Amino acid sequence: MTDGRFITFEGGEGAGKSTQVRLLAESLRGRKREVVLTREPGGADGAEAIRTLLVSGAVDRWDARTEALLHSAARRDHLVRTVWPALERGAWVICDRFADSTLAYQGYGHGLDRALIGQLAEVTMGRFRPDLTLILDLPVEEGLKRAGGRGGAEDRYERMGLDFHQRLRQGFLAIASAEPRRCAVIDATRSPEAVHQDILAAVTTRLDSSA
Amino acid sequence: MTDGRFITFEGGEGAGKSTQVRLLAESLRGRKREVVLTREPGGADGAEAIRTLLVSGAVDRWDARTEALLHSAARRDHLVRTVWPALERGAWVICDRFADSTLAYQGYGHGLDRALIGQLAEVTMGRFRPDLTLILDLPVEEGLKRAGGRGGAEDRYERMGLDFHQRLRQGFLAIASAEPRRCAVIDATRSPEAVHQDILAAVTTRLDSSA
Repeated sequence: MTDGRFITFEGGEGAGKSTQVRLLAESLRGRKREVVLTREPGGADGAEAIRTLLVSGAVDRWDARTEALLHSAARRDHLVRTVWPALERGAWVICDRFADSTLAYQGYGHGLDRALIGQLAEVTMGRFRPDLTLILDLPVEEGLKRAGGRGGAEDRYERMGLDFHQRLRQGFLAIASAEPRRCAVIDATRSPEAVHQDILAAVTTRLDSSA
Repeated sequence: MTDGRFITFEGGEGAGKSTQVRLLAESLRGRKREVVLTREPGGADGAEAIRTLLVSGAVDRWDARTEALLHSAARRDHLVRTVWPALERGAWVICDRFADSTLAYQGYGHGLDRALIGQLAEVTMGRFRPDLTLILDLPVEEGLKRAGGRGGAEDRYERMGLDFHQRLRQGFLAIASAEPRRCAVIDATRSPEAVHQDILAAVTTRLDSSA
């Protein structure tokens, strides 16, 4: 046990995760904490190489099980090389997407058996879980409109249908209601600064009153 | 159920698998069968991209679990895109390495929990198994000497220590004795032609008297 904390951000496309991850990191650094900012899939050399296979190419490039296995391989590499060593030395690690994304995208989105996703999680990380998961929630149409403005080659998930993204949103909300102590749902329809204040409040209340 | 058959070749480095795979394919084609020749990791577009991550780079590039997850992802892609469609249309599929290599390399070689490898196999392929597995066996020193003459960039496994390769050999022999109906151990110290004759005999006896 160390003072390190592992905070993950989750949510659909265009929910503003990257902005909020950055704002939270700035706040925590202002309070003299070592903060490690990272993301999934990726966050370590090997995991970033796997990321390239996941986020580009044809929508049907991988079947749901292959995709879940690739995400799990990238997650394991990320944990072993980046997250666990940082937590060991007492850093606060903030991660843009983590295991809940596998459950939401491959489980709720693509209909992959959720027990099987649980088995994979056990292989990948045993009983390790985030200390706090912030789920940024907003209507699917609004998220996709925001994400569409981003451009770039990493749009394989954005190009999946509206139904898929609806199942995704319901999946994240189901995860939050199944694990309310770990997860906080944040209304992401408001201004970035208002969302940031909610996130700071959740971090302070749930993790550390001096955060 | 179709007339298709799935035959896998297993064994340590330098056992002569590629030569024997080719010779068996030629024999079966001479008997008017559709033969699909493939290999792991790889054998489909996505799986070949994953292969590149596995067979090159530093020996300690991946921890044992990450490596098993990557092999499983490549295997799933290979099954979905190449092996199962070929078996469906009645082809005989001959594969250079398959799931026993994961159990031997990551389980016996790197000491990864074998129950966990079993869980991964279930996620990857359910109850699907090869119809026949030919395990080419020879002393480790001889295999590494042969493999060393090959050169090339795909030598990450060859560069692991002698102890590792000894555990690997014992692992393959343990797999064969646990599943004697599926596995045949072939003495690979002899000439390629003599080894090929043993393989043909095993295929004929075990799979199809008209093979």
